[in-house]
Amino acid sequence: MSEELTGNVLVAQSGGPTAVINASLAGVVTEALNHGCIEEIYGGLNGIQGILNEELIDLAEESQQAIRGLRYTPASALGSCRYKITNPEDYERVLQVFQAHNIRYFFYIGGNDSQDTANKISKLAKEKGYALRVIGIPKTVDNDLPMTDHCPGYGSVIKYIATTVKEIALDNQAMGKHDFVSIVEVMGRNAGWITAGASLAKRRNEVDDPPHLILMPEVRFNPEAFVARVQEVLRKSPYCMVVVGEGLTDQDGNYLATGSGTDSFGHSTLGGVGEYLTEIVEQNLSNVRARSLKLGYAQRAAAHCSSQADNDEAYMAGVSAVKAAVEDGVTDKMVTLVRTESDFYGCETGLANLDDVANAEKPFPVQWINEDGVSINFQFFKYANPLIQGEVQVPYENGTPKYMSFTGNRVAKELPNFQG
Amino acid sequence: MSEELTGNVLVAQSGGPTAVINASLAGVVTEALNHGCIEEIYGGLNGIQGILNEELIDLAEESQQAIRGLRYTPASALGSCRYKITNPEDYERVLQVFQAHNIRYFFYIGGNDSQDTANKISKLAKEKGYALRVIGIPKTVDNDLPMTDHCPGYGSVIKYIATTVKEIALDNQAMGKHDFVSIVEVMGRNAGWITAGASLAKRRNEVDDPPHLILMPEVRFNPEAFVARVQEVLRKSPYCMVVVGEGLTDQDGNYLATGSGTDSFGHSTLGGVGEYLTEIVEQNLSNVRARSLKLGYAQRAAAHCSSQADNDEAYMAGVSAVKAAVEDGVTDKMVTLVRTESDFYGCETGLANLDDVANAEKPFPVQWINEDGVSINFQFFKYANPLIQGEVQVPYENGTPKYMSFTGNRVAKELPNFQG
Repeated sequence: MSEELTGNVLVAQSGGPTAVINASLAGVVTEALNHGCIEEIYGGLNGIQGILNEELIDLAEESQQAIRGLRYTPASALGSCRYKITNPEDYERVLQVFQAHNIRYFFYIGGNDSQDTANKISKLAKEKGYALRVIGIPKTVDNDLPMTDHCPGYGSVIKYIATTVKEIALDNQAMGKHDFVSIVEVMGRNAGWITAGASLAKRRNEVDDPPHLILMPEVRFNPEAFVARVQEVLRKSPYCMVVVGEGLTDQDGNYLATGSGTDSFGHSTLGGVGEYLTEIVEQNLSNVRARSLKLGYAQRAAAHCSSQADNDEAYMAGVSAVKAAVEDGVTDKMVTLVRTESDFYGCETGLANLDDVANAEKPFPVQWINEDGVSINFQFFKYANPLIQGEVQVPYENGTPKYMSFTGNRVAKELPNFQG
Repeated sequence: MSEELTGNVLVAQSGGPTAVINASLAGVVTEALNHGCIEEIYGGLNGIQGILNEELIDLAEESQQAIRGLRYTPASALGSCRYKITNPEDYERVLQVFQAHNIRYFFYIGGNDSQDTANKISKLAKEKGYALRVIGIPKTVDNDLPMTDHCPGYGSVIKYIATTVKEIALDNQAMGKHDFVSIVEVMGRNAGWITAGASLAKRRNEVDDPPHLILMPEVRFNPEAFVARVQEVLRKSPYCMVVVGEGLTDQDGNYLATGSGTDSFGHSTLGGVGEYLTEIVEQNLSNVRARSLKLGYAQRAAAHCSSQADNDEAYMAGVSAVKAAVEDGVTDKMVTLVRTESDFYGCETGLANLDDVANAEKPFPVQWINEDGVSINFQFFKYANPLIQGEVQVPYENGTPKYMSFTGNRVAKELPNFQG
């Protein structure tokens, strides 16, 4: 037991939502209620952006039902943001908000950028001599945070994708169409973690099982080789199923899916590589038809098809963050998931320095991609399959899932408005 | 009890698969086993195409497990086809196959084209004096068969879409992005039945709930009016959620989603209207970002999120077809679903003449579309909401659904090869 620090908790969520980021929030709130030194439990709305604006809600006032509902409600119940603090003075503002509300524990659930934000807040508090314990809680469907075996959110997205791919494959097979190419575009800008997850739709060791071709962002795209692979599959199977990550690049490393889609800042938008591949197929192979679909945000929000293992670990990460901060006086760390060494899969939590996590990315191990460049080997299966076990039972009301939302009683503001 | 007709059953599936077409097959097989006058139960592979080729399997040889598995396995376990008989002589061939295998009961599970095929077979048998009872069993996600209140397959596709839309809306809302347009493209070429189903994601009577704009193929698209609607939504909500049917047309009735996608026969392929709308938004509204996703075949194969009510009715349609043919001597009919008149939803089966069903289409009632042209009224809710009730419990194995497939023992061929 470390020195007791009495005060309030602030928890916030950041970055793209997942099916289980709210489970981590449930873990934080539930565990915080166990500790007498914690007086109030506040939620920051829309991540660091809301905190700068002093937009806090009182989580202790929320119903038990709402907290239970967090366990299966996708997206971020507190709201999220993609805001990155660029002006160093804004960190001072964050500390002012913390001081005004006697925040002594800050839990930030997010990905790479969010861990960086947590790190900077933690460092500034230390510098200013403000007693604060900061713990990051990992979250990202992209599974690209370093120092942790895997990230909460990842297991659910690949469970949904493997399920969907399995169902589409049955559909393709049933249609008995020959020379048909079915393309599924999934998320994943820089790393193929999500794309590789589609391989879990295959039965173990069955190389001829769909999906037949898995196009990873790690393997630069060669149209001729791709067309040849498609032909090869179509010689053995009436249809060829392709799963492609949105971040697929050409031989020079340029995203293939630039197309006409540029965002309002002139950046090329991702998404559309599936359509691009249908064109490649139809232009190069006469009599072969191709169709693509694009799961988009549906994949990271699909709580109705999420993984119980993932959900349990997300919750555990939230609980462990509070325990580490309150019981062990830990600060400046991110909770990690640690795979236990055993014949069977097990997972416990650990801690990593925020310095070692912030802004770093964990690449997909290239040795898990087979030499053919279009399939994933058994090492990945061993790694990923435990993460999709078990089905979260979402309650339904009137035919669709019944998800929760907070009442959201605002905490009175103490400071002048933020002039960001 | 009609005159007993002793002989064999042939059942086949046709057209695009659904999440519950196999439940109808389960109904046929299970009920057929109850009748002593039925000697063998054969399944025709790949619809009428397989029947022409005398590709039959023995369904009585399949395990109980396989037949149970039909209840929750999507796509067509017997395989399907989109083949339409054009040469009248081919119908003679069908009858030859029936005679060779003493088929006296033919059950054809399918949509408009399939009912037409069933009709022609039935008429020819009558003409030739071959004792045959033919019953069509309705199936289509498009819900466009006439004479039946609704079609097995429809409830499941709209349950999946409403669920997915609800989840994506939570994601959009969580991101707290302002001026964001989220576009979901769904199936539906000529009628907006599937598109309208997305409105079930709204809470009752909450017009400001997502999805905010529902673009039905019934309402010709006006880009200026659309952009104005988007702006109107974005004044009240940080994001605007749009659901669009793939068959949306311009003012002249031309499909908007022709793009570069032409199939190998030079036909324009549908799909891509979502991408088209993102361009319209981003080109006309500076600072507004748009993203689209396209559910494609995932939507009609999503047994993991299918409707128990739909599944039960699909099964019941299969059972009723056999009962009508065997017990009542009915032929030349399609089973219909009949909504019972009562304060509560109820559904029983009826029968319609194949003549009245074949090749006809049931349009979406335009009076169910509100005057604004972008929302659906309460009459549709009353119609569709009972169809999505209850959740089919799909068994999982190792993290993904465990679907069945037939062993598929072939029935020995009796005829020379088909020279089609």
